[in-house]
Amino acid sequence: MALLGEFELIARYFTRPVRRAALGVGDDCALLAPAPGHELAVSSDMLVEGRHFVSTVAADRLGHKALAVNLSDLAACGARPLAFTLSLALPAADEAFLAPFARGLLALAERHDCELIGGDTTRGPVTTIAITVFGEVATGAALLRSGARVGDDLYVSGTLGDARLALEALRGSVALSGDAFGRVRRAMEEPTPRVELGRALVGVASSAIDVSDGLAGDLGHVLRASGVGATVELAALPCGADLADQSEALQRECLLSGGDDYELVFTAAAGRRDAVGAAARASATPVTRIGRIEAAPGLRVVDATGRELGGALASFDHFLAASGTAAS
Amino acid sequence: MALLGEFELIARYFTRPVRRAALGVGDDCALLAPAPGHELAVSSDMLVEGRHFVSTVAADRLGHKALAVNLSDLAACGARPLAFTLSLALPAADEAFLAPFARGLLALAERHDCELIGGDTTRGPVTTIAITVFGEVATGAALLRSGARVGDDLYVSGTLGDARLALEALRGSVALSGDAFGRVRRAMEEPTPRVELGRALVGVASSAIDVSDGLAGDLGHVLRASGVGATVELAALPCGADLADQSEALQRECLLSGGDDYELVFTAAAGRRDAVGAAARASATPVTRIGRIEAAPGLRVVDATGRELGGALASFDHFLAASGTAAS
Repeated sequence: MALLGEFELIARYFTRPVRRAALGVGDDCALLAPAPGHELAVSSDMLVEGRHFVSTVAADRLGHKALAVNLSDLAACGARPLAFTLSLALPAADEAFLAPFARGLLALAERHDCELIGGDTTRGPVTTIAITVFGEVATGAALLRSGARVGDDLYVSGTLGDARLALEALRGSVALSGDAFGRVRRAMEEPTPRVELGRALVGVASSAIDVSDGLAGDLGHVLRASGVGATVELAALPCGADLADQSEALQRECLLSGGDDYELVFTAAAGRRDAVGAAARASATPVTRIGRIEAAPGLRVVDATGRELGGALASFDHFLAASGTAAS
Repeated sequence: MALLGEFELIARYFTRPVRRAALGVGDDCALLAPAPGHELAVSSDMLVEGRHFVSTVAADRLGHKALAVNLSDLAACGARPLAFTLSLALPAADEAFLAPFARGLLALAERHDCELIGGDTTRGPVTTIAITVFGEVATGAALLRSGARVGDDLYVSGTLGDARLALEALRGSVALSGDAFGRVRRAMEEPTPRVELGRALVGVASSAIDVSDGLAGDLGHVLRASGVGATVELAALPCGADLADQSEALQRECLLSGGDDYELVFTAAAGRRDAVGAAARASATPVTRIGRIEAAPGLRVVDATGRELGGALASFDHFLAASGTAAS
């Protein structure tokens, strides 16, 4: 383990030539301006070892995920990624960690043309990653949680529940084949932020959120912010092949309450189904219609016969959760 | 100790009515736009318990300091504070900590009309505070580290070294009266970001930085970024009454290498002395001329007779420092 000085560490792993920002890493502040007619979308997320990831996670995947969860927030607003800051607490300046961490982080940043413009590095007892990300969206056009209207269709991107299935396998509560575990673990550790879909949904979707704490909980934020309710068809929820092999009870738990999927849940007027389909194709992202927005408050989940399912639809909450490494 | 849910915690302590931002706490992103003809100045700092503060620090002071060190970065760029995000890892959602922490943080935010627009809260083994702050500065007008020119005067605001003196007293390496310890501890725990001075220096100063890691080290960043050197007169360095009572060796150490002062070090053309004086008066901030910028690279410290002092002028470095709680 090589120990680097703080300034050398920043220079070696995190300094890149400045592109879009007026001024990048290395002054007291970075300078940033949205294009005319646009505003900045800003989001912050913090990942703590032992809470959001295990110490044995591959560092390149951790770098990817730390930025991915932030890009996912931009996606949920329909914003185009511009830049981010990185604050990093580490037990030691360990190059065997830092080199792959920076590689995974900057590869995803590069893919979305999202520039690292500043941050902070310090020692701390456990690895802690705090990222603030900046995106650009036409003024007034951002997708908000508060825009769902009665009669809107309800959609989700990709598939749900694989990250939770990986977590259950890590906890030993379910046994998976090596191949299946590898796939769902990758879904948990290297999620794909739905940036292109989010941008394509601007002007199409009426509201959006990303699934970080579980479909039921995150959709609940939309319903409360919009003053509406919803009915979701359990059989319509998109489920990957590995989760489809599991018990019905586990499927339901993973689909409705599993966190860390980073899919987009969004609403659109029933008259916009063609436009939603076009956005899905343009962004090469699978999208599934899973229910509808209704006037009666609350979330109802129905089976294939339309019968309402009982049971608590708990979302993950960091301070009330009993134990374990879980969703951010 | 009361345990709160994550969302209840955010709502209770950190949600304020939205003012300047288009959208504040409670959606996937906050939305922010600089005024026409302005750009955003962005800075991030992370404070970790046991590293940047002791667990026994008063929570209201900690809240103040966490934002103050970020506002100090805006001050060093001459930017007007607009907004900030707060990511917080806590061992538990302890109201006895959160209430005074939020009070200290938001009181300073209010004073500078700087709005909390988002963030994240999670559990972690030690209290960790990551703030990203946003300011506004006229396009092209930000004070940079790279602007110092040969012949410029060198200035510092306020006094230097009190925070380091408090740290030495905490470590037991120096004995202070109770009154003196209270004063310097407050300087360390509740620093004043020089926001008004920084803004008044736009168009006057040629470069600026804030003193977080010690005068010698931080000035070194300016000298390298500007491709110049400097001579500083030791006797000219502004020293508070409590530090003036200490040994010459300790004074010199605290003045040159003490971190956590959050004063501004800046340069201005010799022809701008009246303008610097006017900026100091307009911002009600004491300013002292301490030396000059020269062509020969490096930092020279001279005594009252002009004789150059020897000795290492180390600045604090988090990954190379031997031990202890120290400067951010």
